[in-house]
Amino acid sequence: MRVALLGLGLIGGSLGLALRVARPDLDVVGWDREPASAALAAERAAVTALAATPAEAVAGADLVVLCAPVGALEGLLAAIAPALAPGAVVTDVASTKGQVVAWAAEAGVPFVGGHPMAGSEKSGMAHARVNLFRGALWLLTPGPGSPPGGLARVEELARLVGARPLVLEPAVHDAYVAAVSHLPFVASAALVDVTTSDPRWPEMAPIAATGYRDATRLASGSPAMYRDICQTNAAAIAPLLRQLAARLERLAGDLEDPAEAEAFFTSTREAREAWLASHERFRLPG
Amino acid sequence: MRVALLGLGLIGGSLGLALRVARPDLDVVGWDREPASAALAAERAAVTALAATPAEAVAGADLVVLCAPVGALEGLLAAIAPALAPGAVVTDVASTKGQVVAWAAEAGVPFVGGHPMAGSEKSGMAHARVNLFRGALWLLTPGPGSPPGGLARVEELARLVGARPLVLEPAVHDAYVAAVSHLPFVASAALVDVTTSDPRWPEMAPIAATGYRDATRLASGSPAMYRDICQTNAAAIAPLLRQLAARLERLAGDLEDPAEAEAFFTSTREAREAWLASHERFRLPG
Repeated sequence: MRVALLGLGLIGGSLGLALRVARPDLDVVGWDREPASAALAAERAAVTALAATPAEAVAGADLVVLCAPVGALEGLLAAIAPALAPGAVVTDVASTKGQVVAWAAEAGVPFVGGHPMAGSEKSGMAHARVNLFRGALWLLTPGPGSPPGGLARVEELARLVGARPLVLEPAVHDAYVAAVSHLPFVASAALVDVTTSDPRWPEMAPIAATGYRDATRLASGSPAMYRDICQTNAAAIAPLLRQLAARLERLAGDLEDPAEAEAFFTSTREAREAWLASHERFRLPG
Repeated sequence: MRVALLGLGLIGGSLGLALRVARPDLDVVGWDREPASAALAAERAAVTALAATPAEAVAGADLVVLCAPVGALEGLLAAIAPALAPGAVVTDVASTKGQVVAWAAEAGVPFVGGHPMAGSEKSGMAHARVNLFRGALWLLTPGPGSPPGGLARVEELARLVGARPLVLEPAVHDAYVAAVSHLPFVASAALVDVTTSDPRWPEMAPIAATGYRDATRLASGSPAMYRDICQTNAAAIAPLLRQLAARLERLAGDLEDPAEAEAFFTSTREAREAWLASHERFRLPG
């Protein structure tokens, strides 16, 4: 069995490390646009071989995993389509699925969309780690363009690296992650924007502590990745941003009503604690 | 030297533990409205003695630290005023200062406002820890009602438990913490509200991962504390909530403009990274 990893950043690199540990017998061929990332992946033994081009990487591969940013996937799908071996299955790890599934169909690529719910605000092969996917969900979005047996092969990949596969429709996937993943990072960045663009920021900055650090952690994520996510999932994200804005507007008027404020903070604490408790049962990744 | 701690929750309890380690010779008298909290504080040796009432606790104390929620401080200040020893200094640990300083002046209490920038979303004596204040800033807001030498005595307390004192005017304090502390917790709770009140939440909840967990951590804080903060600092918090709402509204319309989105996420990432780097120099608490 031969796996090709196209893109050797945080996700591709961690996937390579985890695969090499789980199945040392596998051929793992890697490619990255950046020669330095490819070299580091080889040095850390995240791959067994490097390829010079995407087409070269996928030649003879049973499973191809596109680990490049969403914005690069349309081009990559077109580039690998003619070079795929018969029976090959292609998947990806991008944060939005509707657009990617459509691109794969256009390129005639046998595709099963994928999205491991694991990551970090730190990107790049230098931050790759073998246990990144352990305990995480791995969302899968098979569709009419998926080959027979394709879903099973990608589920096997997810399980090999310790993740738990969950199948969703592409549009449902995009709506759900807009709420639990994309809304939080846009809100986090907006919070940084409002505070750091304040003329008093230089005096306030030393006072900001762990609460500010955690509430803004997602704002340190990759701008290019966030740009691509916003562009390919705007229809789902925009209404949520407007809901959050409306909620903040309403709260601004309610701050001095003690009963109202306490009821609000009590209900949101209970909701979060219930969520956290449900997650602790199956161990929250990271 | 005798210190009285009125309120033995996370902050009062941690302060007692840290003081007992730093200066085992000190008398640390504790009082809490809840007998169970007081008993736990005595059991964990966070205090050397317990008092039955606030007035009994402050009798003979050189330094009185009010570690109760903001909402309880007006009553506590009135209760201890007649019982204070000559030369005693009173301080507090509440998150807003303008209102508290005014209450102390009304009660005729020799007061220096204080606010250690340390905490946790977990409250109560059970979560108290000896190193809670290590490396943290301890904001101090002396004013016309502060006694001679009062500031120095509270600064000494802060240094004893490993914190770094920083003096600010009460109104300036309230404006700064509104941005770096209060805005983040209201935004965090609003984010929980928008996501968990979505009819699709039961299906989305398992997908929410570490990003959601960190962006919403502050929503697990004490509802009563948040209520009091909002009530006593609404004038500073409300305009910031409206600014954040306006920023989110604008972003909702910009999502599909790749240049605009990337520039935004790049600038907020840089601003946060610069803040984080400045903090790493003096070690971020927690």
